[in-house]
Amino acid sequence: MKITLAHGSGGLQTSELINNVFANRFSNPILNQMEDSAVVEGAARIAVTTDSFVVNPLIFKGGDIGRLAICGTVNDLLMRGSIPRYITCGFILEEGLDSKLLETVVSSMADTAEEAGVVIVAGDTKVINGEGGMYINTAGVGFADEKVNCASANCKTGDVIIVSGNMGDHHAAILSNRMQIENNIQSDCAPLVEMVKNMLEENIDIHAMRDITRGGLATVLNELADASGCMMEISEELIPVAKDVKSFSKILGLDPLYMGNEGKLTAIVNAEHADRALEIIKGSRYGQNAAIIGRVTEGKGVIVNTHLGGRRGVGVLMGEGLPRIC
Amino acid sequence: MKITLAHGSGGLQTSELINNVFANRFSNPILNQMEDSAVVEGAARIAVTTDSFVVNPLIFKGGDIGRLAICGTVNDLLMRGSIPRYITCGFILEEGLDSKLLETVVSSMADTAEEAGVVIVAGDTKVINGEGGMYINTAGVGFADEKVNCASANCKTGDVIIVSGNMGDHHAAILSNRMQIENNIQSDCAPLVEMVKNMLEENIDIHAMRDITRGGLATVLNELADASGCMMEISEELIPVAKDVKSFSKILGLDPLYMGNEGKLTAIVNAEHADRALEIIKGSRYGQNAAIIGRVTEGKGVIVNTHLGGRRGVGVLMGEGLPRIC
Repeated sequence: MKITLAHGSGGLQTSELINNVFANRFSNPILNQMEDSAVVEGAARIAVTTDSFVVNPLIFKGGDIGRLAICGTVNDLLMRGSIPRYITCGFILEEGLDSKLLETVVSSMADTAEEAGVVIVAGDTKVINGEGGMYINTAGVGFADEKVNCASANCKTGDVIIVSGNMGDHHAAILSNRMQIENNIQSDCAPLVEMVKNMLEENIDIHAMRDITRGGLATVLNELADASGCMMEISEELIPVAKDVKSFSKILGLDPLYMGNEGKLTAIVNAEHADRALEIIKGSRYGQNAAIIGRVTEGKGVIVNTHLGGRRGVGVLMGEGLPRIC
Repeated sequence: MKITLAHGSGGLQTSELINNVFANRFSNPILNQMEDSAVVEGAARIAVTTDSFVVNPLIFKGGDIGRLAICGTVNDLLMRGSIPRYITCGFILEEGLDSKLLETVVSSMADTAEEAGVVIVAGDTKVINGEGGMYINTAGVGFADEKVNCASANCKTGDVIIVSGNMGDHHAAILSNRMQIENNIQSDCAPLVEMVKNMLEENIDIHAMRDITRGGLATVLNELADASGCMMEISEELIPVAKDVKSFSKILGLDPLYMGNEGKLTAIVNAEHADRALEIIKGSRYGQNAAIIGRVTEGKGVIVNTHLGGRRGVGVLMGEGLPRIC
């Protein structure tokens, strides 16, 4: 079946689409009430976020737009030290979209939500003219612990900079697909619930956390340096990059520092807790390649110590890294 | 300035767009932190919802996609008897969009959010290929009162059916614009905070509420009848329709029962409270044309008593009412 504008009417065909495609996989007691909004258990402090996903292609090695849409929002909630609980999904479908493709994406979202421990509590579907593509918005609500204060402005001189794994995988996977290059590079698209929960449970003193997406590590570290009024000093040779991604980037002249990921974070941690934090991340799902890559120092901006003993400043991404990467 | 794919990169040009267009109007202490998610005050029970907006044209008589995006989500939260608090905004911009147009929409969102008493706590911007259009997703969080139980399945035999104003205005305004018909019909696009708050404050026993959007009153009442296992019996002559909309619909052969609104609700109220509820709605902003239009009875589906003394059943909307109406 192909999606038509009538599937976005709000009438019978919208109901049929919801019943046949969404209800099959998203079914839960809250969503099944089919109300204008879901009334659910709250908490004294909550984290709220949103993200839209326009990735092209819709399905790629290591993931798809649905898995990405859940991971992106789940990870944004985690980055403030909150535990993700509820997700909303807004679908914008282009006329002509194959309903089988939609089912694959919806199914992947359901699996990823289950993995991440979140419940899809509200949804919406619209249909626009187009060529069979789709866009997904997810918003999320997490429960925040009043004791945790994880924010961009909290980085302190002496803190240790950790990344949770290899840089650039998602960017390299999407670009390989677009250029029709055959290789083994997979997107790293993943929900980082386990590593964050494990750190919080052991009361690791995390000053700031950011997931490393559009703009890459260089952009994220610059934003943290700006917000905290400090310098981020990292060593090139300590930055983990998978062998395949390294050679792929070298050939194309890309810098993994600016390449987006979808399942990696950087944590700025009190130096005394850094070794234990690294151990916890390495012992958690999706964290086996984690590494300490530098320190927070006095000054401003981001400095990279190069292989050859030089030092270079790196700014934020200028222009377009890779269109529609997420 | 025209929007380009680089504005969606996550790098410098994304920051510039955020600072120049969004920060100007959305600025608030929470959003200004520019974190991956906003950590805010919560409540023991919360309402959560989402809606995407793809209306074409972007600006129309009586509103624009921005006002619509705030009203739609605010109203969905209200329909469960919750008080809207936080809104997230996900923008999907088509390359070539004029930044002045974006500024107009953003400004309208800020004004509507202020009117509705909600804070925009999180946002996201993506850019896709296209022809200068835009899509907006909003998600919302409201604080729910444990005493209020306003749900589709709660309609009871004997309840009174109220609508808060004239049917079909938004549909007629959008269609007039598309057909380039000159008339005075304006969209009714509005946040219904005042009338709902006023009813809750007086402890009106509202069994169910729904905003009357895509699919129109007929579709909404059918959904309520289905969920509650009862019949909705309404009288044609009691349904308020503005004179201009009535003649417009007559000429085009449209039925106002199936025409979408963006600032109207139906409330299914305990019969003892119905007169007071009507009075409250009539005395609230956007409620002056409210009317009691019928009763909940035993049976199923929706029955309309016609002017001529006949009775006809009305089903849900089939096919496409009007593409991209919201």
